[in-house]
Amino acid sequence: MSEHKIKVTVWNEFRHEKENDKVKAIYPEGMHVAIGEMLKNEGDFEVTYATLDDPEHGLTQEVLDNTDVLFWWGHGHHGDVKDEIVDRVQKRILAGMGLIVLHSGHKSKIFMRMLGTTANLKWREKGEKERIWVIEHSHPIAKGLPDHFELPHTEMYGERFDIPKPDDVVFITWYEGGEVFRSGVTFTRGNGKIFYFAPGHESFPIYYDPNIQKVLVNAAKWAAATINRDSGCPMVDPLEEIKSSK
Amino acid sequence: MSEHKIKVTVWNEFRHEKENDKVKAIYPEGMHVAIGEMLKNEGDFEVTYATLDDPEHGLTQEVLDNTDVLFWWGHGHHGDVKDEIVDRVQKRILAGMGLIVLHSGHKSKIFMRMLGTTANLKWREKGEKERIWVIEHSHPIAKGLPDHFELPHTEMYGERFDIPKPDDVVFITWYEGGEVFRSGVTFTRGNGKIFYFAPGHESFPIYYDPNIQKVLVNAAKWAAATINRDSGCPMVDPLEEIKSSK
Amino acid sequence: MSEHKIKVTVWNEFRHEKENDKVKAIYPEGMHVAIGEMLKNEGDFEVTYATLDDPEHGLTQEVLDNTDVLFWWGHGHHGDVKDEIVDRVQKRILAGMGLIVLHSGHKSKIFMRMLGTTANLKWREKGEKERIWVIEHSHPIAKGLPDHFELPHTEMYGERFDIPKPDDVVFITWYEGGEVFRSGVTFTRGNGKIFYFAPGHESFPIYYDPNIQKVLVNAAKWAAATINRDSGCPMVDPLEEIKSSK
Amino acid sequence: MSEHKIKVTVWNEFRHEKENDKVKAIYPEGMHVAIGEMLKNEGDFEVTYATLDDPEHGLTQEVLDNTDVLFWWGHGHHGDVKDEIVDRVQKRILAGMGLIVLHSGHKSKIFMRMLGTTANLKWREKGEKERIWVIEHSHPIAKGLPDHFELPHTEMYGERFDIPKPDDVVFITWYEGGEVFRSGVTFTRGNGKIFYFAPGHESFPIYYDPNIQKVLVNAAKWAAATINRDSGCPMVDPLEEIKSSK
Repeated sequence: MSEHKIKVTVWNEFRHEKENDKVKAIYPEGMHVAIGEMLKNEGDFEVTYATLDDPEHGLTQEVLDNTDVLFWWGHGHHGDVKDEIVDRVQKRILAGMGLIVLHSGHKSKIFMRMLGTTANLKWREKGEKERIWVIEHSHPIAKGLPDHFELPHTEMYGERFDIPKPDDVVFITWYEGGEVFRSGVTFTRGNGKIFYFAPGHESFPIYYDPNIQKVLVNAAKWAAATINRDSGCPMVDPLEEIKSSK
Repeated sequence: MSEHKIKVTVWNEFRHEKENDKVKAIYPEGMHVAIGEMLKNEGDFEVTYATLDDPEHGLTQEVLDNTDVLFWWGHGHHGDVKDEIVDRVQKRILAGMGLIVLHSGHKSKIFMRMLGTTANLKWREKGEKERIWVIEHSHPIAKGLPDHFELPHTEMYGERFDIPKPDDVVFITWYEGGEVFRSGVTFTRGNGKIFYFAPGHESFPIYYDPNIQKVLVNAAKWAAATINRDSGCPMVDPLEEIKSSK
Repeated sequence: MSEHKIKVTVWNEFRHEKENDKVKAIYPEGMHVAIGEMLKNEGDFEVTYATLDDPEHGLTQEVLDNTDVLFWWGHGHHGDVKDEIVDRVQKRILAGMGLIVLHSGHKSKIFMRMLGTTANLKWREKGEKERIWVIEHSHPIAKGLPDHFELPHTEMYGERFDIPKPDDVVFITWYEGGEVFRSGVTFTRGNGKIFYFAPGHESFPIYYDPNIQKVLVNAAKWAAATINRDSGCPMVDPLEEIKSSK
Repeated sequence: MSEHKIKVTVWNEFRHEKENDKVKAIYPEGMHVAIGEMLKNEGDFEVTYATLDDPEHGLTQEVLDNTDVLFWWGHGHHGDVKDEIVDRVQKRILAGMGLIVLHSGHKSKIFMRMLGTTANLKWREKGEKERIWVIEHSHPIAKGLPDHFELPHTEMYGERFDIPKPDDVVFITWYEGGEVFRSGVTFTRGNGKIFYFAPGHESFPIYYDPNIQKVLVNAAKWAAATINRDSGCPMVDPLEEIKSSK
């Protein structure tokens, strides 16, 4: 494989797809594989998979050291993710790895850890229509997208979304049932870029939608690590002569 | 006491002052008392003290529920602060309580928890001069301050400071030894306001400096809680008729 | 009058109300008077009126020097506002005066001048319902407001709204016809605070709505000047000895 | 030439170099040519030159339509730039062209137009040392730079710098004479990216410094237009059925 490919690891809780027939019908190999195969087909990515039930949740130090961008999909078992793995992922993000948090991953330990807030929101599962408006057309994550696009059936995620002020609000969603949501938002933490993207409820085939796929590809390119830097908290010598004395 | 007073709790690790004669000479009753008495004299504040060695570190739920603004000074024993107390403080900040983190509190569990980053920086203890430039003159925290002011002897804290993008950079410091530092920065997390202020090394009488005192007073007024809101993550009914069907 | 009152000047183009019977029926004395009388009744404000057809558009240097917050409503005659008056208003904002731009004022010379962008948006006049979601509940402009509130008939203003990244997105609107809009946004320019608030189409009685009135009162308090500072671009002497030589 | 090259236009007032022997000795063909030739040698850029005394200041619509990034150096003759050319450049930036404003260009009409503020600062010309600290190591503009770097002789530009809150503060400068400055800051306006970089006084050979050159190359790549979009202010039809009636 080309050394220039972006190394993506797609992490998935991967339990819905094993336990729920409806979800299994949509994503027979799991959402991570649906996302990962799409990225591979796009050509610019090398893809690794990791799931909750793998040893160390599939996120060994070696895997993380070889990851430019980590996708994260979790939902019902956030509490099963071990704190020491969350520590390790956080450290790698701060050094430069990108993180793309999908849908119900808003309540994952790693997302709340990076933000310092609850990431709470309103929600409703009625299969209603969602219309996603592009707010920043020149943002790399919006590249090639139309003015707005729709998902016919989606889970509603509504404001107030308890997140810190984003660097950029790339998308805002309109819901048929009357809510709005900052559905695509970016953050920088340490040297790492973070993108949260709301669509992706497991019981709809959302990750097969061409616009959604374009967002995921764009986001992976945008978030890819360009640096690996852990500067510590060093004691340093003065650069100039100090005339003051205690 | 007037019901309009701002309820401040000043938290201090309070070990240096008991263990180090030089620090004890400067702050015989502890830095928390020096800060708290100054705030009381200013007239708009009710002050409570809390220290590391108090039961529950002095931060019971009742104390926090009666705190509009929490000051935090810690240094050598960040690790001794119990995680369940950090959880409790975080929850109260997200509901609306203000947090003012002082000097070496940059490495406190609560500050790193709120930010999601390491808050690492460069440092040096040579007693050099620090000149603090006001960057946002109209910010409430800068009210009444001159264009710049100085501390004759200080510990150096230099960039890069590993923090998320602040809401406002109120102060930037010039150090005699050649570094710069974003020495006064604000954040919003949930409904709570956070201010980090770099000056305050324990072996210099910095909290007796009139400009520093003005900053602390301004910051306490600015950060005071105006709301107590914990909205949870509720399932909600649609506000509009939904025509889509799964 | 109390010296502590906030000095508000409400500027209105004031032509619709003279030329259009429907608008006149809603605002017989003009929108500026409807807004100003409401502010007066609230008790914390001194109110001055200024309109396009007044000499110097009512915005003499003396009026501006005695204004803490300027409200601006314009629509069809933005081009008739003289550039020298825009210069004067801009200078006063940068020194500290607050500016509250209402509805179609998004295309006013002063708003585009302060932002550097076109402030373009999508629009439609069908009298549809607007639902305004509070995004930052602890922001002073949202004080006392419910989770969301509605206007039964409004002009639609939709994204993409061509504004620089706001300091805060206080409100996001959901429209019945399918759009979203960042309907309440703040900016700081120089020492002045700016708030743009989208509701306020002239042919609906929007400024009589209690929630809208609460927003206007909150915004006027939030934006009120606390400083009057014009620092120029001064040549200054060094504060430290310079050892370099050319 | 390759269609993939970034099209840069370097604009220079180009009068100092003709009128002042010291400046002429450093930049015999003008600063624009020193910058432009360096960019050409780097390999990824096509370069066009434009100066104040060219017809239309060298910035015809055709030139701008073929420019991905515009560099701007001006100093003593900002007032000679025609307003209609400033209008044209602003429009092109909002559509997507990048703008890199150098040194004394902070008082150019185009920079103040884009920001809405005075861009005032403190200044002093004593040939003192400047130390530039990298604040955001993972920002594309900081790529490949050390932790900090120095210029031995420079004009001092000090805070407070009257600019709106930047998107990113990439660099902060320490000056020998005692000031600090946000010397590398980014903004987004419309679809265009803007970078202001303080170093570049005409009487020192600053644009030959390898670190400064690296910043200029990085900035040109970062700011290059990826979109050309002028959306206007269109009236649009509803996307959903509207049940409200006036």
